[in-house]
Amino acid sequence: MSKLYFRYGAMNSGKSTALLQVAHNFEERDQAVLLVKPAIDTKGNRQVVSRLGVSREVDVLLNKTDSLRQAVTDALSTRDRGLAPVTAVLIDEAQFLTPHQVDEALEVAIFEEIPVLAYGIRTDFQTRSFAGSQRLMEIAHTLEEMKTICRCGRKAIFNARVGDSGRIKEGAQVMIDGEHARYEALCAKCFLSD
Amino acid sequence: MSKLYFRYGAMNSGKSTALLQVAHNFEERDQAVLLVKPAIDTKGNRQVVSRLGVSREVDVLLNKTDSLRQAVTDALSTRDRGLAPVTAVLIDEAQFLTPHQVDEALEVAIFEEIPVLAYGIRTDFQTRSFAGSQRLMEIAHTLEEMKTICRCGRKAIFNARVGDSGRIKEGAQVMIDGEHARYEALCAKCFLSD
Amino acid sequence: MSKLYFRYGAMNSGKSTALLQVAHNFEERDQAVLLVKPAIDTKGNRQVVSRLGVSREVDVLLNKTDSLRQAVTDALSTRDRGLAPVTAVLIDEAQFLTPHQVDEALEVAIFEEIPVLAYGIRTDFQTRSFAGSQRLMEIAHTLEEMKTICRCGRKAIFNARVGDSGRIKEGAQVMIDGEHARYEALCAKCFLSD
Amino acid sequence: MSKLYFRYGAMNSGKSTALLQVAHNFEERDQAVLLVKPAIDTKGNRQVVSRLGVSREVDVLLNKTDSLRQAVTDALSTRDRGLAPVTAVLIDEAQFLTPHQVDEALEVAIFEEIPVLAYGIRTDFQTRSFAGSQRLMEIAHTLEEMKTICRCGRKAIFNARVGDSGRIKEGAQVMIDGEHARYEALCAKCFLSD
Repeated sequence: MSKLYFRYGAMNSGKSTALLQVAHNFEERDQAVLLVKPAIDTKGNRQVVSRLGVSREVDVLLNKTDSLRQAVTDALSTRDRGLAPVTAVLIDEAQFLTPHQVDEALEVAIFEEIPVLAYGIRTDFQTRSFAGSQRLMEIAHTLEEMKTICRCGRKAIFNARVGDSGRIKEGAQVMIDGEHARYEALCAKCFLSD
Repeated sequence: MSKLYFRYGAMNSGKSTALLQVAHNFEERDQAVLLVKPAIDTKGNRQVVSRLGVSREVDVLLNKTDSLRQAVTDALSTRDRGLAPVTAVLIDEAQFLTPHQVDEALEVAIFEEIPVLAYGIRTDFQTRSFAGSQRLMEIAHTLEEMKTICRCGRKAIFNARVGDSGRIKEGAQVMIDGEHARYEALCAKCFLSD
Repeated sequence: MSKLYFRYGAMNSGKSTALLQVAHNFEERDQAVLLVKPAIDTKGNRQVVSRLGVSREVDVLLNKTDSLRQAVTDALSTRDRGLAPVTAVLIDEAQFLTPHQVDEALEVAIFEEIPVLAYGIRTDFQTRSFAGSQRLMEIAHTLEEMKTICRCGRKAIFNARVGDSGRIKEGAQVMIDGEHARYEALCAKCFLSD
Repeated sequence: MSKLYFRYGAMNSGKSTALLQVAHNFEERDQAVLLVKPAIDTKGNRQVVSRLGVSREVDVLLNKTDSLRQAVTDALSTRDRGLAPVTAVLIDEAQFLTPHQVDEALEVAIFEEIPVLAYGIRTDFQTRSFAGSQRLMEIAHTLEEMKTICRCGRKAIFNARVGDSGRIKEGAQVMIDGEHARYEALCAKCFLSD
């Protein structure tokens, strides 16, 4: 049976690089993947952008009211993907999926028999989960951490929002990196002590 | 630095056995543990009960308004625990902690430098997280799955509620095992197909 | 496809308890397990003994020249196990398997479609692997660590041999716990500094 | 305490990409890394080469008689690395380390307090470990699998050697990819059935 994986990590832990590597691994074996990204993330628009310098256009930009299962079914039936069938669905910025889309991701895995690998961050700048990451934490078959480090050397697990005048602790949940603020992945101690 | 661990698993995955084994491991090395259980679980009252036949009384039965950090501090300062200091906090049925108590568990780990090992289930009979497990999923340093199997042989990840007349899909989130219903750990496919 | 799992840990990390819990989990779901132990371990003879106080007789005591695959096949065909087919093979003290028996364990998993869960220690008192654990490390589908702690509080990964006059650093690889020496699980730092 | 990590995976599982991403993660936080590669791998000479298209020169090309600990100490004391101290050692193709160099890697972690992340393959084309990977499997604090897929869709765990006339089952342990043969990562079933 195929599975729904949630590979979660703090900001800048290398999630997009890992996703692009997995896409490459499948395609080297002549197996096609379907790259999906929720539309809310305006960083790079239709691109999955790795900080290592690699990028790639997604196949499906998913709006909040779109059906993930339909998008997968459409890709299976109508798109010309050469000889290779879609053998995996890879989702970037999966924290921005709706809970319903996460439920669909599970259905794709268990009823369509296509593994779904969702990459995303666990929590926002106030340590609260996003709607998509909460649902993924609830129902994914496997939770796998993508590790990165804090400035102090410990494992970073939280995402601090930092503006021109320093740490920002109040505000909207979603503020894309680089627009009016940036993010710094911190360990719990640095996050709570700052 | 000490960490907050969430060891989650479906019903009957052996969480209480694992907790009692860890307590034993610490005590064999002359290190004391503090056993904590939220008061909501009336099964066994003050006992951690393993289905293998081992049981043990908890040190702290925690009500919803109790402070976990205070309970740990009290244990460190006032209880006569012989020569051994408390070197770990073990929490059974951790899904029933309040979010605030989970925040305190993180504080105990990073500010008191005492590791906290929380054992609990991830989701209820409708695949929704409990208040405690949601918060643990958000802020625990490490998420570790306790595996068990479905009747079909696959890994069980969900908890079905079953009454005398079969599967129950609506009702209160908390209904203690054995009182008016029992639980069966199922894989996603059996859970959704049933 | 079924898998070969190697769940390894230092001495006294709770491997036998975990194995007995897994056996219980299968049997609660009316699925039979086959308990196997290499004959070299004279501790408890035919018993799997948990330090928590639970024990159970093994189904197969395997000599070095015995075929694991044959033992499994025999169990499948000739033993009266009631209605329940063998759905998992559980191996205690798996470090004492021969490399050939480990190869057979992999064959049982992939050709007989029966998962094999092997529990054992990784290395001897000189940090060298046993023949069985080396082979398991090479070919198991999944390596899962059973954690325990050192006297200093860190994770223990090595097994020190201790006699009446202190640490023993030379000698035969196999000396059963309690006969002429005992073992203490230590972290790398305590092990190398002592 | 710092740790020795062995991140192992089959050929083409993305180990070099992951290593380069980790280097990037450290350096973004103004923490320097020391990149090490055993000299035996002639692929790319002094380069760590990722199949995603990213590459980078190593800091230390380690011969079999070289001391890893000395190389790290030299880097700490004499190299002008600007203001950033070396905060991690990253080793590519770690299966080619000598057992002694792996012992030194553990010493660097526990006595120099610098984490060592070793990336390498677990076994050769005959499912036997390399000298370096065997020792890493014995003493690393943490074993982490880098997953990739077989042509059949299952998880690949073995490395088949393939020549112009098909599968090669006998020969020297080391034959660098692309020179006289190539490698294909396979699952256990495809590997053993072929």
